[in-house]
Amino acid sequence: MRIAERAVYAMSITPFDAHGELDEALLRAHLRFLSAGGVGVFVCSQGSGEGDLLTGAEKLRIYEVAVEELHGAAPVCAAGIGLAGATAGIEALARGAAERGVDAVYILPPRPNPVPPRPQEVERYYRRLIEAVDCPVILANNAFLAGYTLPLPTVITLVEAYPHLEAVLLVDANPSLLAQYVRAVGERTLVLTGVVSGILQAHAVGAAGVLCMEANVVPDLVPAIWSALEAGDLTAAERRYRRLMELSTVIARYGNPRSLKEALRAIGRDGGHLREPYLPLPGEEFADLERSLREAGFGGGPDDRGRSA
Amino acid sequence: MRIAERAVYAMSITPFDAHGELDEALLRAHLRFLSAGGVGVFVCSQGSGEGDLLTGAEKLRIYEVAVEELHGAAPVCAAGIGLAGATAGIEALARGAAERGVDAVYILPPRPNPVPPRPQEVERYYRRLIEAVDCPVILANNAFLAGYTLPLPTVITLVEAYPHLEAVLLVDANPSLLAQYVRAVGERTLVLTGVVSGILQAHAVGAAGVLCMEANVVPDLVPAIWSALEAGDLTAAERRYRRLMELSTVIARYGNPRSLKEALRAIGRDGGHLREPYLPLPGEEFADLERSLREAGFGGGPDDRGRSA
Amino acid sequence: MRIAERAVYAMSITPFDAHGELDEALLRAHLRFLSAGGVGVFVCSQGSGEGDLLTGAEKLRIYEVAVEELHGAAPVCAAGIGLAGATAGIEALARGAAERGVDAVYILPPRPNPVPPRPQEVERYYRRLIEAVDCPVILANNAFLAGYTLPLPTVITLVEAYPHLEAVLLVDANPSLLAQYVRAVGERTLVLTGVVSGILQAHAVGAAGVLCMEANVVPDLVPAIWSALEAGDLTAAERRYRRLMELSTVIARYGNPRSLKEALRAIGRDGGHLREPYLPLPGEEFADLERSLREAGFGGGPDDRGRSA
Amino acid sequence: MRIAERAVYAMSITPFDAHGELDEALLRAHLRFLSAGGVGVFVCSQGSGEGDLLTGAEKLRIYEVAVEELHGAAPVCAAGIGLAGATAGIEALARGAAERGVDAVYILPPRPNPVPPRPQEVERYYRRLIEAVDCPVILANNAFLAGYTLPLPTVITLVEAYPHLEAVLLVDANPSLLAQYVRAVGERTLVLTGVVSGILQAHAVGAAGVLCMEANVVPDLVPAIWSALEAGDLTAAERRYRRLMELSTVIARYGNPRSLKEALRAIGRDGGHLREPYLPLPGEEFADLERSLREAGFGGGPDDRGRSA
Repeated sequence: MRIAERAVYAMSITPFDAHGELDEALLRAHLRFLSAGGVGVFVCSQGSGEGDLLTGAEKLRIYEVAVEELHGAAPVCAAGIGLAGATAGIEALARGAAERGVDAVYILPPRPNPVPPRPQEVERYYRRLIEAVDCPVILANNAFLAGYTLPLPTVITLVEAYPHLEAVLLVDANPSLLAQYVRAVGERTLVLTGVVSGILQAHAVGAAGVLCMEANVVPDLVPAIWSALEAGDLTAAERRYRRLMELSTVIARYGNPRSLKEALRAIGRDGGHLREPYLPLPGEEFADLERSLREAGFGGGPDDRGRSA
Repeated sequence: MRIAERAVYAMSITPFDAHGELDEALLRAHLRFLSAGGVGVFVCSQGSGEGDLLTGAEKLRIYEVAVEELHGAAPVCAAGIGLAGATAGIEALARGAAERGVDAVYILPPRPNPVPPRPQEVERYYRRLIEAVDCPVILANNAFLAGYTLPLPTVITLVEAYPHLEAVLLVDANPSLLAQYVRAVGERTLVLTGVVSGILQAHAVGAAGVLCMEANVVPDLVPAIWSALEAGDLTAAERRYRRLMELSTVIARYGNPRSLKEALRAIGRDGGHLREPYLPLPGEEFADLERSLREAGFGGGPDDRGRSA
Repeated sequence: MRIAERAVYAMSITPFDAHGELDEALLRAHLRFLSAGGVGVFVCSQGSGEGDLLTGAEKLRIYEVAVEELHGAAPVCAAGIGLAGATAGIEALARGAAERGVDAVYILPPRPNPVPPRPQEVERYYRRLIEAVDCPVILANNAFLAGYTLPLPTVITLVEAYPHLEAVLLVDANPSLLAQYVRAVGERTLVLTGVVSGILQAHAVGAAGVLCMEANVVPDLVPAIWSALEAGDLTAAERRYRRLMELSTVIARYGNPRSLKEALRAIGRDGGHLREPYLPLPGEEFADLERSLREAGFGGGPDDRGRSA
Repeated sequence: MRIAERAVYAMSITPFDAHGELDEALLRAHLRFLSAGGVGVFVCSQGSGEGDLLTGAEKLRIYEVAVEELHGAAPVCAAGIGLAGATAGIEALARGAAERGVDAVYILPPRPNPVPPRPQEVERYYRRLIEAVDCPVILANNAFLAGYTLPLPTVITLVEAYPHLEAVLLVDANPSLLAQYVRAVGERTLVLTGVVSGILQAHAVGAAGVLCMEANVVPDLVPAIWSALEAGDLTAAERRYRRLMELSTVIARYGNPRSLKEALRAIGRDGGHLREPYLPLPGEEFADLERSLREAGFGGGPDDRGRSA
């Protein structure tokens, strides 16, 4: 399934059981929940997906499960590839993901060290990884995770060199930079934003879509905003956007991925356990989270659970 | 004139002559240019208005000129009050502004030092300054200038204590914080944003308006975005927003206030000279600025100069 | 008096009376206290000297008082010149300082805006100010205050162009940069550090001295460290250095300049009042400061008040 | 061998062959080179040791090799444990290191995410890891790598709870914080600094030693500084310290670990290849590095190679 078939993507959580082992049944149920809401999925992402806490073998199994579960229903993007580690190991993981049939591999910049790598090292790294796979590639320019931003000329060079580099995801609060990306590479590749709070301006400047974590709790809310924008229905888009800001405020309070799993529990769903070093919220904090979600009208009961607007 | 009568405000430049002296004639002409575009004005602002380079006497004269020139045509807000200096001197300046008949005084947080002041010092400072004037007050929460952010509880306390605190301006890239401000104090006071690139989300979450520097070059562009949003015309709002992003990208290239005055020159208007330490752009940089504005369709000739959409 | 005649300089506090007016008698007494401890003085410095809260006229009066009081006893350096404001106004202040007979003017980089000025603007600014005076000049490379660091090539250019640029003060935690400064300009000018905690390494790499705020409370402690280093007496230098770290820890707790004036009060001296927006410490915080100083052996009584080692 | 038997530790490089595989022969030779210079070693450290690019199996093999090679000659500390990954996996690595007979395990704080973990998560993490091993533990408070600093009360709690927590390593530029650590836990545990440029002040405030990367190129230089300090020979300590600053300046130019391996090549030693994403320096940069080292007198020929003073 082409990644262009969805405008909104969720960084899926990774459910664990009480012993910290991957809970495949919960994962499958959660992926179906996401897909039914109209979003594509990124699995094993660093933050929401606890990707940093997964071994390579676990990631490959998760890619496999996601492809089995969602094939044809929603695009599956393999996240958790890049950032830390030797390029050779990252390359093997990317190949493994492609072999398992994911719809795209999402490649983070190299960050072996708090000191940013040199520009030629970044370019060499991306060339090796993009050349290692035949499936579509999504390039991440994520300064929040990497600690530095990719220069636009490097992004242009890579986009022009590799037709299967089908999307570029930019995580940057400045919408004029997103507009520059659309102008520079928007005719050859999809330009996505990883800043969901900027969805209105992303649509305005011509971005192709958005990646977010909020969809884990209310999968259809962000797609509903995007649909309203596509339909030119500003009133509906703004009303749903205000809902999104309420949800984001609550989720941000205790940090990602804690809040996501706890919020699912609060609204009566099961996202599984966290893996250490993450710990569940103490009782009074969970109560605050539950109350905040209820007061904001999220998950008040079976009828409106997950309803977006 | 009530500040609520305009949704968009410009941080006006301050024109100087070749000797670095205030050029009142150019200032008057520029203020009329802004007012004709449908914006209210902030004069003596730190960045665009070179407020940091003005003496107290010069600021008072500028407030006076602005009131004379615009009285009844556009609200005049006295900026350049606060941040550096002893509270007693800031208080005298605020009183002087009020005496000259401005429609509001805009008060920046205290920043006598790169180390943020203590919370009780911030509250005491704002109480003294707000109590010093009878005219409407706009409180600034500007972490970009102050180096720290005001706690929301302090803002709530001040808003509840002083009815003439008629607006709070928030400079923060996070729209969920802006939404929290609207929820917390939006019924008692106007909530404005100082991040014009976030104008779409500001309107969505219920902010009352926006303060920007771009209006110095194209005064009617941002008001046209706001009008389209008010009218529910998403297509027009987005088209104009893309124009704004083009303008912002060009202006950001050489920094504020250099770019503003040079951009006015490039489109055939006269914003006067900069005051040192600022220097005019070297020839090839000015040529780049001029070419970029022309290619983006700003100020190509007398017919479309300043036309926004 | 040549600035080279002292290795240690104090950023003197500025005593105010209960109404926030300059207290000249206390200022004179404090300057004598400093001078007797063996340090030179910087008056009107931004932080410790509350320089940001002083008008230009007040600064000129303070330079005058300091010259009257200390002439020949300790070098007097005019601080509080630069950073904010128009270059023309800064130039007038520098000239005024020189006319009042200070032993050097200390010039901070331009910071009209949180966005750093352009390199040609910085160089032009310094050339204008250095050329404006005949007396010795101390150039400040203070990224803590300015928000950016001067490029070493610019410093070299200025040192080579102006023989009366007699010292360069570097505020940077990296001692290898200080060593580079000593190698690059140390034969033509004095290289001073503004990081007193790095005094041991500053002496090791060949710096000429140090500027500090701690001398306001115990004037002879830092000179005693420097003397021990000059004498090759490591044991004494280290013992005194540990005292300095204890003093710095206590002073840092409530921030500069609050802690300095409150610490003087705690040890039985009178540094005068703070000027708003600074407020005196609440009772329990003052009690904590007093107890900490007493436990560390500072100012326990008349016999050891101010004794350093 | 007790870790207290060395005051200076090197973060050893990890030599690779041309295919990016571990080169055990070069590793052994390098460890002997270090040991002969008088330093203890940390192997698999994140930066200098390219620890982030090593698999768990490779790390265990390196610990094994280091113990075989150095047992009794120099203390071997297992680094590269912590920071990224699930706590369970980190625990297994720490146990594996202990089983291979290292003299201590060095445990980095958790950093599964750019957002710092919660205090109870940090404490739980450290308790699990410290309890997992019987061998001595070195706790790292490294804000440079972790992005946050451990609160001193947490460090005190852990030191008091676990007698085999034999050292705390602080990476912080502020020497007064190091002095606070010495006062707070120095009687129960060794306090080490990871900021070699602060070695003079670390000795002065009573720290037990220093961890550095410079020893990879000139192993006996930092021990020679420490010995001079222990002997009270300030002149020798300062002369050697200036040498260290020269070395640090050159090494810092192209970043760690590139510079270390290239510097070894420049002085005629073999540190092996880098592993990607790191790339060797281009020719002209290597030439600059070689010339800088030669001009500074490092490795000019067989006679003075590695001589420190």
